[in-house]
Amino acid sequence: MARIAVCAPSTPIAREDADRVLTLAAAEFPDLMLDIHPQCFASQGHFAGSDEERLSAFVECANDPQVDAVWFARGGYGACRIAEDALAGLTHAAQDKLFLGYSDAGYMLGGLYRERIGKPVHAPMLADIRREGGEDAIRRTLAFLSGDRSGLEPSLSAEKHPVVAFNLMTLAMLGGTRLMPGLAGHVVMVEEVSEYLYAVDRLFFHLTAHLGGIAGLRLGRVSAVPENDRPFGSEASEIARYWCERHAIAFLGEADIGHDSTNRIVPFG
Amino acid sequence: MARIAVCAPSTPIAREDADRVLTLAAAEFPDLMLDIHPQCFASQGHFAGSDEERLSAFVECANDPQVDAVWFARGGYGACRIAEDALAGLTHAAQDKLFLGYSDAGYMLGGLYRERIGKPVHAPMLADIRREGGEDAIRRTLAFLSGDRSGLEPSLSAEKHPVVAFNLMTLAMLGGTRLMPGLAGHVVMVEEVSEYLYAVDRLFFHLTAHLGGIAGLRLGRVSAVPENDRPFGSEASEIARYWCERHAIAFLGEADIGHDSTNRIVPFG
Repeated sequence: MARIAVCAPSTPIAREDADRVLTLAAAEFPDLMLDIHPQCFASQGHFAGSDEERLSAFVECANDPQVDAVWFARGGYGACRIAEDALAGLTHAAQDKLFLGYSDAGYMLGGLYRERIGKPVHAPMLADIRREGGEDAIRRTLAFLSGDRSGLEPSLSAEKHPVVAFNLMTLAMLGGTRLMPGLAGHVVMVEEVSEYLYAVDRLFFHLTAHLGGIAGLRLGRVSAVPENDRPFGSEASEIARYWCERHAIAFLGEADIGHDSTNRIVPFG
Repeated sequence: MARIAVCAPSTPIAREDADRVLTLAAAEFPDLMLDIHPQCFASQGHFAGSDEERLSAFVECANDPQVDAVWFARGGYGACRIAEDALAGLTHAAQDKLFLGYSDAGYMLGGLYRERIGKPVHAPMLADIRREGGEDAIRRTLAFLSGDRSGLEPSLSAEKHPVVAFNLMTLAMLGGTRLMPGLAGHVVMVEEVSEYLYAVDRLFFHLTAHLGGIAGLRLGRVSAVPENDRPFGSEASEIARYWCERHAIAFLGEADIGHDSTNRIVPFG
């Protein structure tokens, strides 16, 4: 029996979504026990409770010696406000845990990876139950937590370098901050959602300046691109290639990750 | 007679807007001669012509010994793609010129300031003629070019530190790149437009990590904030204060700059 603690460092989830995931887990993954922290349902302005509430719930989950994995409930925005204090509050009990999430949870995963605490994993989150095909996304993370490796991003099987996966915006914002992990020698996967292509281009301008020495970059899905008043003139993959070339970064092709229910799993390292 | 060369490192302008500004300048500023480079009307995808066209027009204007000032026509997005090559192409003739603009033109201003080339100036651009009260914005820049200092940002008169002014997104994206100027000891003014407050918070998280050693920060207008599905929970000024406090940066209050026709002038330095 593995215990999974769920907390929300960014934005809150609905009880109904939590219930659906609990039901699915109970029916299909009897070896997992999900503990959904009440903080996941808290709300203050944009966030799942105040900075103090979100920080305290995360630290409680991560430092609980009975817990095997901390699963972030949902992205949105907010984790960067608490991530530094969160890392400072961790004890030895956090060391062997898995930490799973993506999108805004990347601030936590990035900081944990930088500090070599636990095992950060890019993986679908509880709130993905709302997506079309969302149950499959949830099953992928729960199966991974049960020891099933079939949900891994396909390029990992042949990859010899350590790998990380991030939302493009999140990794761009991490650059130069006290949460940015050293990524030299890594394959870096990025994906994006709901950004104009000009903003994607701008993020690549910024991010590639922070990725010196990486082993290469893979592009996940860039989805739900809003319609602009005129076409940008190149596709997301051309944008990625262009900026990689300017910074002599190897562009390695696609990654099977994104803000959708087919988002695959990428354990960091 | 001062010669002002207008070019567009980001997005194109309409001939009608150029004509309105030429007419206003001819009527009210007979000591100024405006040369609008044809590249300002070029269009390729998102941009005012290809990277090569935009680069070449800028270098031509900046290296022309007959030209006293280079006025950027419009923001949008695109200057960061050509700014490094642009700086590399400048000759001694660029050294004594004024370079005026804001918003996306900040990539050019920032790079020029970093390289100590010419005199970068945050100022209204030609395309501001389209705004409500746009003629006043145009008059402010043209009057400044005629030697009138009444359009300067008001806090400058009592300021003892060097000052710069940037769009928040632009300066955040500059951080850690080869275009980022050293801002130690400077008062940094930032303004933003059309960004959600959570994105403003995220940009401050990122930017304040890159502003160590500045003399202080002033916040210009944060305008046209889109409505989100829920209120963020704090105002732009509270966000700025919060992140300044976290990084021990002095928050100095408001700056009279923004994406509007009352946007004041800030000569860098």
